[in-house]
Parts: sequence; structure tokens; C-alpha cells
Amino acid sequence: MAVYTEVEAERLASFLADYDLGSLRMAKGIAEGVSNTNYLVETTAGRFILTLYERRIEAAELPWFIGLMAHLADAGLPVPRPVRDRSGAALKPLLGRMACLIEYLPGVSVTVPTPRLAGAAGEALARVHLAGQGYPPRANALGPAWWQRAAAELGDRLEAIETGLTRAVASALARVRAAWPSDLPRGIIHADLFPDNVLVEGDRVTGLIDFYFASTDLLAYDLAVLHAAWAFPPDGRRPDRACEAALFRGYEGVRPLEPAERAALPLLGQGASLRFLLSRAQDWLAAPSDAIVTRKDPRPFARRLAHYAALA
Amino acid sequence: MAVYTEVEAERLASFLADYDLGSLRMAKGIAEGVSNTNYLVETTAGRFILTLYERRIEAAELPWFIGLMAHLADAGLPVPRPVRDRSGAALKPLLGRMACLIEYLPGVSVTVPTPRLAGAAGEALARVHLAGQGYPPRANALGPAWWQRAAAELGDRLEAIETGLTRAVASALARVRAAWPSDLPRGIIHADLFPDNVLVEGDRVTGLIDFYFASTDLLAYDLAVLHAAWAFPPDGRRPDRACEAALFRGYEGVRPLEPAERAALPLLGQGASLRFLLSRAQDWLAAPSDAIVTRKDPRPFARRLAHYAALA
Repeated sequence: MAVYTEVEAERLASFLADYDLGSLRMAKGIAEGVSNTNYLVETTAGRFILTLYERRIEAAELPWFIGLMAHLADAGLPVPRPVRDRSGAALKPLLGRMACLIEYLPGVSVTVPTPRLAGAAGEALARVHLAGQGYPPRANALGPAWWQRAAAELGDRLEAIETGLTRAVASALARVRAAWPSDLPRGIIHADLFPDNVLVEGDRVTGLIDFYFASTDLLAYDLAVLHAAWAFPPDGRRPDRACEAALFRGYEGVRPLEPAERAALPLLGQGASLRFLLSRAQDWLAAPSDAIVTRKDPRPFARRLAHYAALA
Repeated sequence: MAVYTEVEAERLASFLADYDLGSLRMAKGIAEGVSNTNYLVETTAGRFILTLYERRIEAAELPWFIGLMAHLADAGLPVPRPVRDRSGAALKPLLGRMACLIEYLPGVSVTVPTPRLAGAAGEALARVHLAGQGYPPRANALGPAWWQRAAAELGDRLEAIETGLTRAVASALARVRAAWPSDLPRGIIHADLFPDNVLVEGDRVTGLIDFYFASTDLLAYDLAVLHAAWAFPPDGRRPDRACEAALFRGYEGVRPLEPAERAALPLLGQGASLRFLLSRAQDWLAAPSDAIVTRKDPRPFARRLAHYAALA
């Protein structure tokens, strides 16, 4: 949510000289992305997002992410297409970091989804799942083994977030890992399709962004992440029934769930809740309380975990 | 340089409903302005900058600044025009702050000015000085009396920035205040026309922004600020002769200096150096050294102060 690396206009103009994009008209550092620097750039040829990869992301993994965006854009999805320079390179060094220029997509991110938008997001996710077939696999680094490790590292510091949370997490972890399915359909998942990663204009999805958690895993787990992210009112204990119904209808209109996937959803929802509860707890406990950065509250995911556990 | 107030897309859409600007297409928090929150906003009617005034600026003074921008835009200067809602209001409450939507102007800010750009900036400043005639006055809160106060408050903490700085500032202050002219032409000055407040495309000035230090003072003092901000190479002790010559030529092509103004420039340059040396010293000493915010180095203005003193 910050511009970590300042790119001077002169430096940016010389970077752009490697591309067939005309001359620089505008560059604004934007408060987008948690761990990368992003600029909205306009040239005489159009608008682009310039990302400088700061940390968390292994440079060796970047070509996989960039290739995935191109693959999904080629399939007709509203995914920003990486721009190649005259030598064909999409990833280039800039100020000691790797950088990539991607297509700008219009739209805004909503905070409280409507049923129509939940339906459109469900449909878009299913289209990602179908279009991802054929793209090379990549292991999900934030799957069940990571949840176990993260919970062990956090230990009873979870009590500082909410009394009883250590125990709630430990018992959910044991239950979910013991029952975690291995035989459901797998493929490329976005793994983080929260409302802030979906651009919309009116009721239409105009952009799916931030593929840097994408990986290969159970497709229905990705739907469970979408449900945990889109179906609950702010801090709500119960999903909004209209959003929930629209989300499933949107998804299944493109990719109908198998009976085993549908049956696993309460379990997968617990897994999704654990994943975001634990990563948010890490960030929450690492950030000083007076930091300017907005810490995302882990507690709504404790409520969602309880909701899914009651259904299982 | 941060988004202090997050404006959710839904809230922004309802704010925009008071204007005849169509529907929201994009909103990006941008890293611009030191003490305000700024969003680049696009609607079906065009692009705008939304500013939320966070601090430092008295709400009662905002209409003066907003009116000045409209006045200068009406005079044909590349100054962003404030946008009025259907009731005619340009300043409106938003999330507990005052907010204003202004026209978006294209262009980028350079870091190291070229002579051509220095000339264009000089010309633009002279046009502001002419166009400002007839606009109501406002006292310059950061003039000589403020320098005295700021220096007293900083005291010998200036030594933490550079050894000998306390004494250099005190002796310059005494010298400059004793000789400060009162009979030079006065008018509306920008008072902060650094390269980051000038948008350019190629060699053309496309925008003059950030009028929140504008006030009524000696016009030649504003030119001295421009000289201190534009004519020196990074950290240089001596002005770049080509930039310096172009800057004066650009200014005087529109508004020739009176002999007394020209004679006062070395003194006015010392005043301008003190003003930025002191405000940067305040920010430098207030910010924790590990802060994410980029602190502007006060020391180049100690070099510029010495340069102007040697000329006087």
C-alpha cells in the first residue's frame, strides 16, 4: 500500500524507450498492492501499470506469474496483459528490482459486494479455472502444510488478537488436515480473489488482478476462498444468502461442481478461513500498532471458520 | 506522500452523484502531496484529482486557494480548475474532511531540470504573477517572521543535521532580516514552485500544481525561490549557468524585472534558502530515521544560502 521505490520521470522515460509505447504523458505512484511498488503510467500509446517487485516474491517465480496473466488474457479473460519490449522481454530490471509493465484495466474495487457482483465474480473465477487448464503447474505455498507451520510459529500470541483463538485454530487445523480431500479436481487457482482484486464497472467485471498467489490446487478450494471473501457482510457471522446464492449460480453457470466438491465446501471453507486468519494474524502481530499501513483484521475469519465448522 | 484517508469506491460513487460527471470508472490513491490524501479519479466525463485536506491547512483558508486556482485557470494558465457540483460548491465534506475535486492535467515532474524546462518554468511563474493581479491578498505565513520563529524553535538541534549550521542560520537570519526590502513589487506568489509542482510533457509546461503555500509577497522573492529550486544541479554549490540564464530569460520575457528587484536577488535568494532549509530541518528532525516517508534533505539549502551570501 505504498510506493517503496521512487521512479524518477527521467528514469521511467529511459525505461520506456525499450518499448514501442511512444512518449511519457503521466506517472503516478499508486497505493495498490501490499508488497510491490506500482505506478499508473500513461504514454501516447495508452495506459499501463508498472510494477516493481520489492519482496515476498521470488524473482525465479516471476516468469510463471507473468506467463499466467498472458495465458488468461489470451483466453479472453479480463486479466492485464504483460507488455513486451522490442526484444520480447516482459520482465526487466529497473532500479535494482525486477519490473513489469502490464496493461491498464479500468474499474474500481467495491468494499461490500452486491449479489450481482458476487455472481459476476463467481462466473469470472470459473472462467479462470477453465482457462487455466494446460498452463504449467506451480505448488501452492500457502496450503495445509503452511497453515500448520504458521500456527506453530504464532503459538499463543494469537491470544493477543482474541482470547481462545490459539485453541480454536489448533482444533480446526487438526480436524481440517485429517479430512483434507486429495481426489477433487485440481488446476490453476487465483487463491486470493477478494473484492480488492476484482475491478468492476457497474455490475460488470472489468479486471481480475494480483495473481501473485496463483498456484495449482483444488479448484473448489478457490471457490471456498471466494465464498469466504465475498459472501459475508462486514464482520458478519452468517453469509448474506443472496450473495451466496448468486456466487454459486455464477460459478456453476460456467463450471458445475461435482457432488464431491459440493460436499467438501464446508471443509474447504474452514481451510480458506485458516489461511487468511493465519496470514492476517502474522501481519497484525508484526506491524507496530501506530503504523500508517492498514492492518487487515484477522478476526472476521475466526467467525467464518466457526460458520463453516458448524456446517461440516 | 501517502493515502491517509481511504475512500471506498461506494463512498466515492455517492460523492460523485452530486456532480454532473457521469459514473465512476477508476479511482487510485496516489502518492502525491505531502500532507493531503489524493486520488486520481476517472468518470465517464473525464479525469480528476480528488484531494482530501488532512492537516496543516486551515479549512477557513481553503476557499482562497480554490478561488485562486479558478482565477488562474480562467486567465489561461495551466492550473487545475476546481470542479463545482450541481449546487455550485467546489469544497465539500467527505469522511470528516474537506474535499475538492479538481481537473486532471497531464504531464510528469522532472527531477533534474534542463535549461529549456527552467526557461518554461520561469515564463510560467511570470504569467502567474501577472494573472494574480486583482486576486484578493493573503499574508505569507512562511515569511521572515516565521524563519525567525522556526530557527529559535530548532535551536542547536540544527547541529544534528550539520555541524556549524546553527551559527550559519543565525548569522544569515540577522543579515537578511536587517536588509529585507519592503518596497519591491508585490502580488500573488506560488511560493513553492519546485520541479515536483510543475507538470511537463517534453519541453512544455502542462500543469502548475499545489498552490497551498500561495500568498501575497514580493514577486521577486518567488523568482528567488524558483532559482533556488531549479537552477542548481543536485547537491551542487553553484548554479548551472545554462539553467540560470534560461530561467531569467523565460521570466523576463513575460515580466521584466525592475532594477531594484534584480539588485535584491542575492538577498532574496538567501531568504528563500532559509525558508526551505528551516522547513526541511523541521521535517527532518521530526521524522523517525526509519520512517517510510522520504525526508527531503535540508543541506543543499545550506549550500545555496552560502552561494547567495557570497553574491550579496
